[in-house]
Amino acid sequence: MSSDTTIIRGSFLDFVEDPFYESESNSVRYVSDGLLVLENGKIRAFGTYESLQEQYSNSKIISYSDQLITPGLIDLHVHYPQTEMIAAYGEQLLQWLEKYTFPTEAKFKDAEYARKIASFFLDELLRNGTTTAVVLTTIFPQSVEVLFEEARKRQMRIIAGQVLMTRNAPDFLINDAQTAYLQTREHIKKWHGLERLLYAITPRFAITSIPEELALAGKLKAEFTDVYVHTHLAENVQEVQFTAELFPESKDYLNVYEQFGLVGERSIFAHCIQLDNSAFQRLSNAGSAIAFCPTSNLFLGSGLFKLNQAKSTQYPIKVGLATDVGGGTSLSLLQTMSDAYKIMQLQGKSLSVFQAFYLATLGAAKALSLEDKVGSFEVEKEADFVVWDLQATPVMKLRNPIAKSNNLEELAEKAFAMMILGDERAVKATYVAGNLTG
Amino acid sequence: MSSDTTIIRGSFLDFVEDPFYESESNSVRYVSDGLLVLENGKIRAFGTYESLQEQYSNSKIISYSDQLITPGLIDLHVHYPQTEMIAAYGEQLLQWLEKYTFPTEAKFKDAEYARKIASFFLDELLRNGTTTAVVLTTIFPQSVEVLFEEARKRQMRIIAGQVLMTRNAPDFLINDAQTAYLQTREHIKKWHGLERLLYAITPRFAITSIPEELALAGKLKAEFTDVYVHTHLAENVQEVQFTAELFPESKDYLNVYEQFGLVGERSIFAHCIQLDNSAFQRLSNAGSAIAFCPTSNLFLGSGLFKLNQAKSTQYPIKVGLATDVGGGTSLSLLQTMSDAYKIMQLQGKSLSVFQAFYLATLGAAKALSLEDKVGSFEVEKEADFVVWDLQATPVMKLRNPIAKSNNLEELAEKAFAMMILGDERAVKATYVAGNLTG
Repeated sequence: MSSDTTIIRGSFLDFVEDPFYESESNSVRYVSDGLLVLENGKIRAFGTYESLQEQYSNSKIISYSDQLITPGLIDLHVHYPQTEMIAAYGEQLLQWLEKYTFPTEAKFKDAEYARKIASFFLDELLRNGTTTAVVLTTIFPQSVEVLFEEARKRQMRIIAGQVLMTRNAPDFLINDAQTAYLQTREHIKKWHGLERLLYAITPRFAITSIPEELALAGKLKAEFTDVYVHTHLAENVQEVQFTAELFPESKDYLNVYEQFGLVGERSIFAHCIQLDNSAFQRLSNAGSAIAFCPTSNLFLGSGLFKLNQAKSTQYPIKVGLATDVGGGTSLSLLQTMSDAYKIMQLQGKSLSVFQAFYLATLGAAKALSLEDKVGSFEVEKEADFVVWDLQATPVMKLRNPIAKSNNLEELAEKAFAMMILGDERAVKATYVAGNLTG
Repeated sequence: MSSDTTIIRGSFLDFVEDPFYESESNSVRYVSDGLLVLENGKIRAFGTYESLQEQYSNSKIISYSDQLITPGLIDLHVHYPQTEMIAAYGEQLLQWLEKYTFPTEAKFKDAEYARKIASFFLDELLRNGTTTAVVLTTIFPQSVEVLFEEARKRQMRIIAGQVLMTRNAPDFLINDAQTAYLQTREHIKKWHGLERLLYAITPRFAITSIPEELALAGKLKAEFTDVYVHTHLAENVQEVQFTAELFPESKDYLNVYEQFGLVGERSIFAHCIQLDNSAFQRLSNAGSAIAFCPTSNLFLGSGLFKLNQAKSTQYPIKVGLATDVGGGTSLSLLQTMSDAYKIMQLQGKSLSVFQAFYLATLGAAKALSLEDKVGSFEVEKEADFVVWDLQATPVMKLRNPIAKSNNLEELAEKAFAMMILGDERAVKATYVAGNLTG
């Protein structure tokens, strides 16, 4: 046993299958008294305390006896430069961008300022139990550099990219397509695959890119096939209409991205509220992923995402949860799950706590084609995990008078209460690559 | 100056008119550096520091220099026995009552247990800045007694009543109509108007009362005209259908209550989501009030309350905000405001922070015909108020780097961010009848 070995004892929850398609007993793994053995930032062993205790009988164990431990959460879509303009009043998408977002993003030309916010943002992710995130930056290359540098310091798994914008924005937020292409290409070579960092080609959305820019984005995706594509799709009715005007030859909004070779595996589309059946089917066939952004969709009044359709048996789509701060109202994926539940209830459906946590762990890892690296407690995966306090507030303690669950049914009730009532106060500890943070 | 005098200095926000009908400059009162003088639990003076400082130059002043002070919040509809079953999974209204609510309420036959929960509940209200609430209990008289006793100890303004139920519930939650009538009559005589306590005749809703019980409720209302009526109305589609089956002679749901003399001033109807124009007009004409319960309406998937219609110019209705715990997901009226905003955004409307605070202060006081006693800083009103920390969390502090607002525009932005991002952590202090609580 290496001197770098850390052993964690507690109650563990993760997933072995998708609880949207499999029964809870076939998809949810709950080890009420388990051991997680970490070495060099990875999971070396995982199982019941009983099965592993002899092997590690001489080791010092860190015990979280009354807590619940899950894999680190994954935020599939979030804008770090918008952290400071969260909760901006009174507008829907396009006006909100104009009035609040663009002026804020302009500040990120200043690398020092950008670093300050990037640091704050990453620390807040960790305080919220988020260890992997797909992050938008701004058009300024330095806003990308500082984010990657700070993420690297923290050993976090961050997927990010320079935002590509060539029109329909103020002058101070517009870049030359060719220049941005070259900057992106440099970023990819420098950052993609460096330790835990990965790159995403990031046209903001069809509205803010001239066709040439989308073509160059497609060219990059063809050159670097395992790089991500990350953009917005069909969030808001006005946005869809404007896109149709700008791209009259595309048969629908998704088709704009299709025409430029941007729809495939490792393509992440945020929102997808205003999509018809055909687009859902094409996303399914392409193996692309949707970032479902509940707090944002409510806050900006964008609409109710049809999660049930995205998770259909016939045309299943990879879906993960996302905070979408600053359109979203919280960096907490618990609060995001709570709003996801409300969105489903408004559609006459439910969302179980296991489905919700799946969408923020293994489901999101699959959406990123990273299921061999993060999202569950499989041996050899990276050791990112969160220790949850199910009694973090007086009301949570009244609701969950006994923290420990003996079986899946008890766990479902207690964890659901935490998901509805909880926020970062419920995060007792976050581990990244085997190390306790904060 | 009496020895009981307390003087508070800070930034004060309250309302002199309704910001749904008047401009902000005509309705919102913001005193950026003010003095509030309390004596014997009431407001003795209120004004700018400049105007009052000489008069109180020899007094000790409690200063909240970087905080915002508002009147104590009013929760227009909340079930104290449901505190412990908040965040119960997967059902809409009628099934949720059956599966979770009724079994929980059965426990309140035990007065000691009821007192424990009542104490917890009232302390949580104060922790959330709520000083006045309209509270449902259970069918057990002792569950009413202990709530009033505990509220009296805390000097809170609590309006409550024994829940009347005679059918469509388990045997253990059914009362005899005549017995419940007599119990209610005793409660009214004992509690209504005792110090700050007030009584509400509380049929749960039409479904759970036989006509005789509603008739007896109407008889009580006729006998004690300044007592409240508090019930549910048109929350959920199934509920509306079932009510129509049970009362085939009533022309609609509201008409059931009208026929029994339960619709007038001091009648509070929770939810009112599934109402047509006629019902809105009749509520307006009757001077009745609606309790708008945003977190509950989303959590139970009941629907989107048409606040704009309720606050129309032609048929204005008194409206206040309500948490509706345990259907609601938080005792925080800030979180309630945040969900109210989301509900309005989904309808393509906005809800300003001033409108939201109005609905939880002076607007709610008017809904209760208590505007001479609570809801603003008018001299002679009862001294209930909340000291808010606009920088309560790291994200709030980033969003509001300067706590103090110099004018209404700055205040609107900062307070809105608090309303969206905040919860009980933003409550720095709650004063009830001039006394600091907690």
